[in-house]
Amino acid sequence: MLTVAYDGTNYHGWQIQPNGETIESVLNRCLSELLQEPIEVSGASRTDAGVHALGNLAVFDTETRIPVHKLAYALNSRLPEDIRIQRSEEVKDSFHPRYADSRKTYEYNILNRTFPLPNKRFDTYFYHYPLNVDRMGEAGSYLIGEHDFASFCSTGAQVKSTVRRIDLCEVGRQQDMVTIRITGNGFLYNMVRIIAGTLICVGGGNMEPGQIREIILAKDRNAAGPTAPACGLTLVGYEFP
Amino acid sequence: MLTVAYDGTNYHGWQIQPNGETIESVLNRCLSELLQEPIEVSGASRTDAGVHALGNLAVFDTETRIPVHKLAYALNSRLPEDIRIQRSEEVKDSFHPRYADSRKTYEYNILNRTFPLPNKRFDTYFYHYPLNVDRMGEAGSYLIGEHDFASFCSTGAQVKSTVRRIDLCEVGRQQDMVTIRITGNGFLYNMVRIIAGTLICVGGGNMEPGQIREIILAKDRNAAGPTAPACGLTLVGYEFP
Repeated sequence: MLTVAYDGTNYHGWQIQPNGETIESVLNRCLSELLQEPIEVSGASRTDAGVHALGNLAVFDTETRIPVHKLAYALNSRLPEDIRIQRSEEVKDSFHPRYADSRKTYEYNILNRTFPLPNKRFDTYFYHYPLNVDRMGEAGSYLIGEHDFASFCSTGAQVKSTVRRIDLCEVGRQQDMVTIRITGNGFLYNMVRIIAGTLICVGGGNMEPGQIREIILAKDRNAAGPTAPACGLTLVGYEFP
Repeated sequence: MLTVAYDGTNYHGWQIQPNGETIESVLNRCLSELLQEPIEVSGASRTDAGVHALGNLAVFDTETRIPVHKLAYALNSRLPEDIRIQRSEEVKDSFHPRYADSRKTYEYNILNRTFPLPNKRFDTYFYHYPLNVDRMGEAGSYLIGEHDFASFCSTGAQVKSTVRRIDLCEVGRQQDMVTIRITGNGFLYNMVRIIAGTLICVGGGNMEPGQIREIILAKDRNAAGPTAPACGLTLVGYEFP
């Protein structure tokens, strides 16, 4: 199992696409070359185009005799600079991070100041108008718990259930950077970006914190705020019990 | 006067070059187009290729009737994403930030962990081996004051005097990020990068903190450590008394 960090700016997301480079296709190619056998990884999160990760996970089978902890170094020397393996470890044949019980943490970063900063342009969403972080934090607190998050799911997604559990939703500010940090047992399609877009509405005064409860009850995508841009979103990592 | 932030990764430094794009050439072109008159800016710091800035300064003369505080917005809409004006203000004809009495602050950022992080690849220097920040801070403290910094100046630089005053040199760590912050009344060619390279030697145990005093006294570039890579260096800004 590989722990994979990437800057998603130049990729068409995780999952292999007929046109365009993806994280998965680059990993498959570099691993197959390195190990001299055809490798197909299976990812934990199929992140969207432009979304970043510090700790996505990928599993694959191999016959290699390279010691498992050395794989991270060997693979990094073949990968492009915007993908870096953080850890390589052996897991049971039966283990798949997508189906195992887990908690997942995302961060959505908003650069909230008068002018954009060039060095933050790839991994934050620049937002000019002042954001009130206390209001955003209150709004976020209403998301905690097990709820039907249908209002926070982009249409077109095919899932059996839109019920998920959010364990933590915190909003903090460090100077000009506003960070929404969310941990839960699973997330619907675009869920974190819709939550971010909605909390930005609350922070900018265009929505009241308490409206979050009504939005959840509505079970209607149109009740929530807009989907915030992909560039602000980072999959931080997974925890397994 | 413009306060200019940039990601220097894709530029041949500040100063106009016969071949290759520079911050100065982009500013001149975009300003001339915006103001419909030929503009030539004059910069405070001629940063090297690959060096970044949060607050470099540039002055120019203009006949424009655009209100000065609106210039920043108007110019940003024409500039590439890796250059962003942070402030536009009127200054006296006689004022030039390069020749005015000032203090200047630089930061050198080192990502110090086992594996690189893709989102930090442009504005930090990745350093694998453990760095002891306390040793680096002690070493930095010996630089404070007025000294002949000839040992910390790349050869080939033509300056009348190699005496400069350093007011502050602090080294801190936030998780994996080691930051050297230096304020002084002026810096010689490559001075901050040579200081960073030398403090990295101290932090890695290849040099003792007290050796900094001997290096200063040697007045010999070969006595100091290597020049650290440009990508880790950011000109933070200027203060005028």
